[in-house]
Amino acid sequence: MPILEIFSQGEEIVTGQTLDTNAAWLSEQAVQLGFTVARHTAVGDKLGDLVGLLKEIAGRADCCLCTGGLGPTSDDLTAEAVAEAFGLPLEFDEIAYRQIQSYFSNRKRPMPETNRKQALLPQGSTRLDNDWGTAPGFAVQAGHCWFAFMPGVPSEMCHIFLERVKSLLNERFILNPSRLVTIKTLGIGESDIQQRLGEVKMPERVQLGFRAGVDEVQTKLLFPADYPEKDMAALTADMTARLGDFVFGIDGLNEETGNLAAAVDKLMRDAGKTLAVIETASQGLLAAKCLGYAWLHSAAYEQSLSALGERLGVAVEMSDLAKTGALLAKALQNQNPADFVLIQLYDGSPAQFQNKDQTIILYNTLLNRESFQQIRHNLGGPAGRKQNQAALLGLDLLRRHLQNRKI
Amino acid sequence: MPILEIFSQGEEIVTGQTLDTNAAWLSEQAVQLGFTVARHTAVGDKLGDLVGLLKEIAGRADCCLCTGGLGPTSDDLTAEAVAEAFGLPLEFDEIAYRQIQSYFSNRKRPMPETNRKQALLPQGSTRLDNDWGTAPGFAVQAGHCWFAFMPGVPSEMCHIFLERVKSLLNERFILNPSRLVTIKTLGIGESDIQQRLGEVKMPERVQLGFRAGVDEVQTKLLFPADYPEKDMAALTADMTARLGDFVFGIDGLNEETGNLAAAVDKLMRDAGKTLAVIETASQGLLAAKCLGYAWLHSAAYEQSLSALGERLGVAVEMSDLAKTGALLAKALQNQNPADFVLIQLYDGSPAQFQNKDQTIILYNTLLNRESFQQIRHNLGGPAGRKQNQAALLGLDLLRRHLQNRKI
Repeated sequence: MPILEIFSQGEEIVTGQTLDTNAAWLSEQAVQLGFTVARHTAVGDKLGDLVGLLKEIAGRADCCLCTGGLGPTSDDLTAEAVAEAFGLPLEFDEIAYRQIQSYFSNRKRPMPETNRKQALLPQGSTRLDNDWGTAPGFAVQAGHCWFAFMPGVPSEMCHIFLERVKSLLNERFILNPSRLVTIKTLGIGESDIQQRLGEVKMPERVQLGFRAGVDEVQTKLLFPADYPEKDMAALTADMTARLGDFVFGIDGLNEETGNLAAAVDKLMRDAGKTLAVIETASQGLLAAKCLGYAWLHSAAYEQSLSALGERLGVAVEMSDLAKTGALLAKALQNQNPADFVLIQLYDGSPAQFQNKDQTIILYNTLLNRESFQQIRHNLGGPAGRKQNQAALLGLDLLRRHLQNRKI
Repeated sequence: MPILEIFSQGEEIVTGQTLDTNAAWLSEQAVQLGFTVARHTAVGDKLGDLVGLLKEIAGRADCCLCTGGLGPTSDDLTAEAVAEAFGLPLEFDEIAYRQIQSYFSNRKRPMPETNRKQALLPQGSTRLDNDWGTAPGFAVQAGHCWFAFMPGVPSEMCHIFLERVKSLLNERFILNPSRLVTIKTLGIGESDIQQRLGEVKMPERVQLGFRAGVDEVQTKLLFPADYPEKDMAALTADMTARLGDFVFGIDGLNEETGNLAAAVDKLMRDAGKTLAVIETASQGLLAAKCLGYAWLHSAAYEQSLSALGERLGVAVEMSDLAKTGALLAKALQNQNPADFVLIQLYDGSPAQFQNKDQTIILYNTLLNRESFQQIRHNLGGPAGRKQNQAALLGLDLLRRHLQNRKI
């Protein structure tokens, strides 16, 4: 597999003011295309550092994806560094210049003289047109390494990569793209997943990996390019079955599921149902995750449980939140035309909520016209994690109900 | 200033599965301590790559902060690579071993034999005790470069850096820490800020920078260590005055403000006031940002404006949202004992909301017992940005009122 490196230029990255999301994104793309990514490097805006680094990489890698340093100001030195490192003098590119001019004229703004610099490209390079910003990128062969230089603004970089660089990579390199299948779960930890999957006989050519995020735990299967589709589906199905109800989505096999909210959105639209929710621990975050979903009719947060009870005409019993949840759900259903009613309550003081070493007990109650389901969870960690988990577990109760139609 | 590099080890970083937040965090720390950060490098888990890179850095930098590769598994190769690169054979560290043992016995779990490996440290290295996980770190001098090796788990890395490494850096290097002042604004763009600040005569030794984030735009002033406190305060005050009401906080001068929600929290607590809010465009996100703030009494989201009007007994006029906002605010105030009532409405179809190239018009109405204020904004960009801006602008209206007491 060809060896690829990622190179990021920018004082703001080296000083830690900006997180280098470009490097991670480009690496994922490169791995999926079939490259071996060997190294990431970031440097600031000293010409000598840039020149030295470009020479190093040219002697080491088959391909290098570079971002940053293409802007109009004096600390944008990438083209100059390429010219010096590889003996390719800068030349004025008439087409690039006209593109920069029209960028400004389209926006009815005068083009500052400094932007002229962005039309200077190293001799013999291939221009990478940038329809999304001012600076064109460029690609250049140096020794046995092919370099692509892209802007540092993430949206422009993604566009140029997907629309220009990707096809050039496929032309220039013999690549065997691997296939990545991701099984997405909520409510089960990485070690429990590993235990459940321990008995699966893993084919030697398949790489198994795990990634625990804030919103989901991902079980990743990386298949070589020539792996039979049928065997890939069979292995994924076996593993999914072992993880059971915890699986809310699978990416990379047929369609992409997206995150949990997107999975619930699809199920709710298919079922043609609507929802009203009362949040406590998640304090608006469950509703916020459902942005743009027409099936969410209403959401409410009330800090005081007794104020909430009063509003809905329910006698709140702090010592019996299961019962209180059920009563509130019925009362809300009587007031509200939504098909589903979701009530989230929790047992725990504000101090317990804020303390990362203490847990709260979450009571989720889901009610529809025919049936009723209630589930209890222990939530730990910092307040923000408790909030996020409460939002996700509410959505997940809905997902499980819609998927199983059991309640 | 001494030259520092950041070195991250891990296949998950190089393949883009994990974003290297450690590198950015350590860089910020290093800059504030007074280092010049010259380079970040990340490599995977090939021994040869690691050895080569360590030698390179030893010939280039005065100091290197390293993360990752200290775990118990066979792909955790940092100590081995250090041993090979610098000719420092691994030695069994009895104290490290006992610490690893007690980590497991404290958790009532048997210590796997593989963890024994974590007690092997390069000859002559300084152990960096890890009270927050299994793997101790270590520091080693190689040539004229001092290396500190820390675990890759961010929470453990932060602890070891702050509790162990920072003081060692201050002992070993002559550092002149610079001082960073950050002026934080909302509702004004970077170019408008630059225009307003254009006439300020910037002292040559002060570095001016900008950072536009999702939640705020930061104007950054970096002062050299010996810059007079009085002049620093005067320059900051001058710039803050020019930015006027848009400034919600200043970090680095006296106290840290935190984000906008934290600034509003302080003002609300000082004023002893409470709030009830109705969200539309932000759909729960305003409430979610106020997690743990006791002054937020209630929040509601209702997808249908007519359903909302019916609930509060107000005749909704879609053609006059300013008037409707005022009527809803009064109606909510009559039902709700909170001191402030905030009503957020917007003009725009669901399609306009979702379309990143179209705008919606936001109407924020703030009412308290004595007075009334209404403000209108145009919101553009992707749906998630509109949602976030709507949440922030609601909080910001409250912030301006509390700061100015003008309405």
